[in-house]
Amino acid sequence: MLKIDLHTHILPQHWPDWTQRSGYAGWIELAHDAPGCTAGCARLQRSEADGSRTSFRDVRENLWNPAVRLAEMQTTGVNLQALSTVPVMFSYWAKAADAYDLARLLNDHIASVSASHPEHFVGLGTIPMQDTSRAIRELERCVKELGFPGVQIGTNINGVNLDDPGVIEILTAAESIGACVFVHPWDMLQFGLHARAGESARTMNRLARYWMPWLVGMPAETCVAICSVIFGGVLDRLPRLRVCFSHGGGSFPGTLGRIAHGRACRPDLFPAESRDPRDYLAGPDRPAKFFVDSLVHDIDALRLLVRQFGSNRIALGSDYPFPLGEDRPGALIEQMKAELASECVTDLLSGSAAQFLNLPPRPTGLHS
Amino acid sequence: MLKIDLHTHILPQHWPDWTQRSGYAGWIELAHDAPGCTAGCARLQRSEADGSRTSFRDVRENLWNPAVRLAEMQTTGVNLQALSTVPVMFSYWAKAADAYDLARLLNDHIASVSASHPEHFVGLGTIPMQDTSRAIRELERCVKELGFPGVQIGTNINGVNLDDPGVIEILTAAESIGACVFVHPWDMLQFGLHARAGESARTMNRLARYWMPWLVGMPAETCVAICSVIFGGVLDRLPRLRVCFSHGGGSFPGTLGRIAHGRACRPDLFPAESRDPRDYLAGPDRPAKFFVDSLVHDIDALRLLVRQFGSNRIALGSDYPFPLGEDRPGALIEQMKAELASECVTDLLSGSAAQFLNLPPRPTGLHS
Repeated sequence: MLKIDLHTHILPQHWPDWTQRSGYAGWIELAHDAPGCTAGCARLQRSEADGSRTSFRDVRENLWNPAVRLAEMQTTGVNLQALSTVPVMFSYWAKAADAYDLARLLNDHIASVSASHPEHFVGLGTIPMQDTSRAIRELERCVKELGFPGVQIGTNINGVNLDDPGVIEILTAAESIGACVFVHPWDMLQFGLHARAGESARTMNRLARYWMPWLVGMPAETCVAICSVIFGGVLDRLPRLRVCFSHGGGSFPGTLGRIAHGRACRPDLFPAESRDPRDYLAGPDRPAKFFVDSLVHDIDALRLLVRQFGSNRIALGSDYPFPLGEDRPGALIEQMKAELASECVTDLLSGSAAQFLNLPPRPTGLHS
Repeated sequence: MLKIDLHTHILPQHWPDWTQRSGYAGWIELAHDAPGCTAGCARLQRSEADGSRTSFRDVRENLWNPAVRLAEMQTTGVNLQALSTVPVMFSYWAKAADAYDLARLLNDHIASVSASHPEHFVGLGTIPMQDTSRAIRELERCVKELGFPGVQIGTNINGVNLDDPGVIEILTAAESIGACVFVHPWDMLQFGLHARAGESARTMNRLARYWMPWLVGMPAETCVAICSVIFGGVLDRLPRLRVCFSHGGGSFPGTLGRIAHGRACRPDLFPAESRDPRDYLAGPDRPAKFFVDSLVHDIDALRLLVRQFGSNRIALGSDYPFPLGEDRPGALIEQMKAELASECVTDLLSGSAAQFLNLPPRPTGLHS
């Protein structure tokens, strides 16, 4: 069965020293010669103002080498990957001109990889969201020149949520040129705040242990982003916008009841024109093209997602090649085969992604 | 069918001016004569350092008047309410001696209400968690002198999570005297941080709109609290402790797959002795008496909860008398009657709460 993995990340093997180029620190580097790194491994690090480097993640060759990716896709049965940058590269914190240049470099790299293997890779660009006009310019280049179906953006831009007028202007441009928008958590709530505001260590400890920025912060981030586009009226203003939230919508699906009841019982705290969040989910009359990926790691949670969103709004996404992702993309979906109609399984494994990415029908038989 | 509502809040109608008594501001008051308040209404407000008052919630007589509560319980078919204070009253931020005195006042009030109607009310105390020895002293008074089955605590104590040694000492005392512990979110992540650290307004805006501190912050708070007791080994050290998390465990159940996978794929980020979080949920061999309440406002979410925790670990909880609660306590559970065994429905409506509260068997037929 055809599998399209909507949620995978890629980086170039090398890129110029942006710290030197820009004249200030905070940029991400991929160090291939870091101590303890063997062949096929490298280390992600951030440049600090004092000239030092802070390492934060060891990665393997499958992050940058298309040949290794293709071999692993063959093993796991993934036909097509949507390639997006690693969210730490968003660089929304940086001067817009520098972030814009970095986005162009990353997008050119993704374009070159997908052009080399167009049957196996499709690109999602990154754009400097801190600068509306540059973001729109690069969005248009991604779609019109590089042939990408859309872009990946963060759940917030320097603490600004997705109901911000500047963000809406970018999303409006995306809708008008038919670009899809994949939303990925980053710069997580308290975690991000700490890094910027210099909170005390004691406060930081709220999420410091047990990988909680990733396990609690990211799902909460995604929930904030979804609430912002729903209650901020973004989905109503842009009914043709195809938007997809990663990690199965984070904590939104499991707390939808509370969120919907909150709006119903305290309408004074919501805009007068806001709607029940359930209106945007399953059903033929829903006013939005609002997708999530399938990355929930639990069959009961995936069942909940299918009931809430419908299989044609859930796209296989694995977070490849990171360990918090699904080791064999689509394995959880395949566990549901016995209880779903075959066209629903097809939706989950490829059809929803094809619709989101606006891919042409394929001879292998995409259901969309 | 017998209904026990584990999650209800109560306040005295009047209490002394704690700002005047302590000599500093930040205390909560219930203003019956606030502008716009009619008979049967009052306003919760906080005293500020400049002598002003900040109103934050209008409440009705059912918050303080037992007769009104009893009449509403008759209407909704609730036989027994567990009474706990409103979490804004925790006062963990205050000087311990002042918070201790306030806790004693609140607990004496709850004891007097439950003593007047022991067949309809049972008390859960509040204790000054910022001071381990005072907290244990008041915990013991609640159980041994006031006859409460246990206490309600917050999801954090001034930013400290529930895996803190001081908290564990209090929970150890609770286990040793057989006291149950009901955990309620408060002082929510970013929201709470802002109030303490004076973050900029822009940062505060992450959760400022759409009631997000309550709709996103509270579920995330509860998830942080559950991760802290699981991965911090608290449930392993205290296997006889009966602990219950409100709001159906917040965002934990819906993101359990991600949390379990995170621990499995990055064991280096977790204590060596930590276990799979699923070990603590359903199953006869689970190492903990770990409950949640039923307040999820969505039948699919309640189904997920029943599959994960089992009906004998889920207790009806309504958050009465607040609007974010379940208007008719148990209505969501009753929607599941057709698909559950009758003893499971009994568990959900009363049996799990009776087990958590360690109530004696009743002639009306508690299933426990």
